[in-house]
Amino acid sequence: MAERKAVLVVGAGDATGGAIARRFAREGYVACVARRNADKLEPLVTEIQAAGGEARAFGCDARVEEQVLEMFGTIEREIGPLEVVVFNIGANVQFSITETTERVYRKVWEMATLAGFLTGREAAKIMLPRGRGTIIFTGATASLRGRAGFAAFASAKFALRALAQSMARELGPQGIHVAHPVIDGAIDTAFIRDTFPELYERKEQDGILNPEHIADTYWQIHCQPRDCWVHELDLRPWSETF
Amino acid sequence: MAERKAVLVVGAGDATGGAIARRFAREGYVACVARRNADKLEPLVTEIQAAGGEARAFGCDARVEEQVLEMFGTIEREIGPLEVVVFNIGANVQFSITETTERVYRKVWEMATLAGFLTGREAAKIMLPRGRGTIIFTGATASLRGRAGFAAFASAKFALRALAQSMARELGPQGIHVAHPVIDGAIDTAFIRDTFPELYERKEQDGILNPEHIADTYWQIHCQPRDCWVHELDLRPWSETF
Amino acid sequence: MAERKAVLVVGAGDATGGAIARRFAREGYVACVARRNADKLEPLVTEIQAAGGEARAFGCDARVEEQVLEMFGTIEREIGPLEVVVFNIGANVQFSITETTERVYRKVWEMATLAGFLTGREAAKIMLPRGRGTIIFTGATASLRGRAGFAAFASAKFALRALAQSMARELGPQGIHVAHPVIDGAIDTAFIRDTFPELYERKEQDGILNPEHIADTYWQIHCQPRDCWVHELDLRPWSETF
Amino acid sequence: MAERKAVLVVGAGDATGGAIARRFAREGYVACVARRNADKLEPLVTEIQAAGGEARAFGCDARVEEQVLEMFGTIEREIGPLEVVVFNIGANVQFSITETTERVYRKVWEMATLAGFLTGREAAKIMLPRGRGTIIFTGATASLRGRAGFAAFASAKFALRALAQSMARELGPQGIHVAHPVIDGAIDTAFIRDTFPELYERKEQDGILNPEHIADTYWQIHCQPRDCWVHELDLRPWSETF
Repeated sequence: MAERKAVLVVGAGDATGGAIARRFAREGYVACVARRNADKLEPLVTEIQAAGGEARAFGCDARVEEQVLEMFGTIEREIGPLEVVVFNIGANVQFSITETTERVYRKVWEMATLAGFLTGREAAKIMLPRGRGTIIFTGATASLRGRAGFAAFASAKFALRALAQSMARELGPQGIHVAHPVIDGAIDTAFIRDTFPELYERKEQDGILNPEHIADTYWQIHCQPRDCWVHELDLRPWSETF
Repeated sequence: MAERKAVLVVGAGDATGGAIARRFAREGYVACVARRNADKLEPLVTEIQAAGGEARAFGCDARVEEQVLEMFGTIEREIGPLEVVVFNIGANVQFSITETTERVYRKVWEMATLAGFLTGREAAKIMLPRGRGTIIFTGATASLRGRAGFAAFASAKFALRALAQSMARELGPQGIHVAHPVIDGAIDTAFIRDTFPELYERKEQDGILNPEHIADTYWQIHCQPRDCWVHELDLRPWSETF
Repeated sequence: MAERKAVLVVGAGDATGGAIARRFAREGYVACVARRNADKLEPLVTEIQAAGGEARAFGCDARVEEQVLEMFGTIEREIGPLEVVVFNIGANVQFSITETTERVYRKVWEMATLAGFLTGREAAKIMLPRGRGTIIFTGATASLRGRAGFAAFASAKFALRALAQSMARELGPQGIHVAHPVIDGAIDTAFIRDTFPELYERKEQDGILNPEHIADTYWQIHCQPRDCWVHELDLRPWSETF
Repeated sequence: MAERKAVLVVGAGDATGGAIARRFAREGYVACVARRNADKLEPLVTEIQAAGGEARAFGCDARVEEQVLEMFGTIEREIGPLEVVVFNIGANVQFSITETTERVYRKVWEMATLAGFLTGREAAKIMLPRGRGTIIFTGATASLRGRAGFAAFASAKFALRALAQSMARELGPQGIHVAHPVIDGAIDTAFIRDTFPELYERKEQDGILNPEHIADTYWQIHCQPRDCWVHELDLRPWSETF
């Protein structure tokens, strides 16, 4: 068991998180996948195992410190050293500023930022004594730019970017690679297919992001030798205006 | 009373907030000044009144929605229309990422971001029907750049910047001027004098920011005609490296 | 004559340059105004003089080093110390990348960047021994963002911004204030009126920038005490999307 | 011959350019390498051929339009379709603003920007009818940030970034992938070894960038499927402060 290496994907419920888990599992990592309701992760775990990989589902509300601590403890104790931790929870909502409730503003921050802080901090605690490890926070267009209707979401994503930047500057010189890919475009998910069918039509022309290709990039980031680390990069379809 | 115009400074407890209140009072605005403990605002209120201005202190924990709502209601009902609202609460703390507690991370966000959201949203609600008004959020170096030891503070300030940007894009075309000055340098405050005496020595050479001059800039921002509005600007002493 | 103070506006041929010259002349500065053809500056000079100010026109191709050197020499020798130098030459062109000729790409850079370098460097040479002075470079939306069709213009404006930033960092600690206002929107000029009549219609609603208000901002920048200097700020009409 | 695919590296004289050429040659591309003096490219060509690859040296002053046109023509006519074009000419100089001559300011721009424009435009002309191709411009720390002593270099690198951005926005929707990696740190070159020996000592600790790893990244960029393209990314050693 000492030879096993683990990856943790917090926010594995969407297509991107799932693709990242599968990608690392394919490379021999035990894919620890987390979302609030572990039952919903069964298809992903089954799929990974069917492909010859190892996976384990965690029911974890990443906004709750004790649950995060417990999950990290279990992985390190029962599975193997965490080499890679990916924080991939989004919380995209759209409201005019006057219609944004305190509850929504807080909840979006708790999901997209606070949970990222808890995940990132626990990853740092585990990785620092080893002097190695990769921590990736998934960013979005709203990480770089506020916009009418997106006060809550942009606030949370800007904050996550600040966390990633601060951690990169603090942890890089201690051997931990912290990266912040900015996904700028629609991703091929059930959500986009069902909610924005006209957007989804671009798929035939490669006009929406394939989660498998995002996952390839995450894998490449992890593989970079430490003399040549990326911190921030933007990813978008060829046809996306930006 | 219909002729009276009000300015609200949330976070009037520091030198900058006080100077802003005095500056607008000097121009004939009723200076509504807020901090958690209203008693501590008495010297400021007395000073403004002694100079011939009008001022009123509010004890308000701006992280608590009901208290913010009540304060805005009182001002509009008893004092006059709010033409200017300044959010000036900072929450500068410094901890390595592994030593940043969930409590600190959350508290810094509640003080520097959530309170700004509540203040800004209530300002918007009052100003939108009138189609005019100025909302200013005080930014800092950490609004633009994460740094080792500043994960909590930078996260909160980045988030406030996203709020200001989103509100500017949404409210500008409705007549509300939203600005985000970024204060990049030490300000002449008791805190700096007592905590960083070597920094404070730069004062003789104009090496730290005079709150009165920051307040002049805020006044100029408010006075800009609507064809020529600033959204973001940086302010620093001549000798500051950046 | 020792008491006279001079301002130089390079690129005084457009509405913005003219308004800046008038604004500083109104404050008692001798307005030195420059463009390639000095004859075309006569109306501006006459207008300033009629208002009781002092002005002098210079025919100067600011892309040509000797002409710039000569102009600075003449001003310092015959008029008075240059306290403020404004570089205001634009060169907005629009071509697809494949239709951008080497001649256009080079010319836009010479007008919008090289001339700014020569102007800024000569200003620095004169101001450094005095340890004071203000140098302002006019920026545009294209200073911050490349765009289809704007490869030549954005390249030149990005370069000018780099110049302003580098000079601010080098000269600030030596007492010279270098600022870079970014004008983000149409300005009330004959060019806009004649070329984009539909844009010009926004004027009634304050939807285009009034050059007088831009000039007010430039004056405020120059007046800032040295403990509280702005380097970059954006200016746009309230109704401008950004 | 119809099956041969070509890569062009303009600025192949340094370690980075050479590594990029070798990397693409290893993947089966004919490595067309260019610098002013073609003779100096012989060792690189020989090395690539010895490893079983194909290479061809071009003596080309990329600041001169006719030479660039001729080189592109020759490659397309005699070698094969250009699938990848890399512009990799730097021109790092350091002078205080007052000591920066017009000649230096212009020369740095011609080398680092104008040559990039000519290279990029010719690449676009060839690739657009095919609706595919990759164009990569090498950026540096100075692409993002001006600094005392770097007015000339930062101006040129900012301008190149504007070019890359404008081209990406224009050409992306036409199938051409334009990327701008920002190299933020010392690279393992003879120049660094000889000029900054104390910097070079970091090599043992992976503290300077290995050109082979930069080249791997360029290869990955080229391989990205068009639904998932990066435009900008930063690369630096783990121990680099930023």
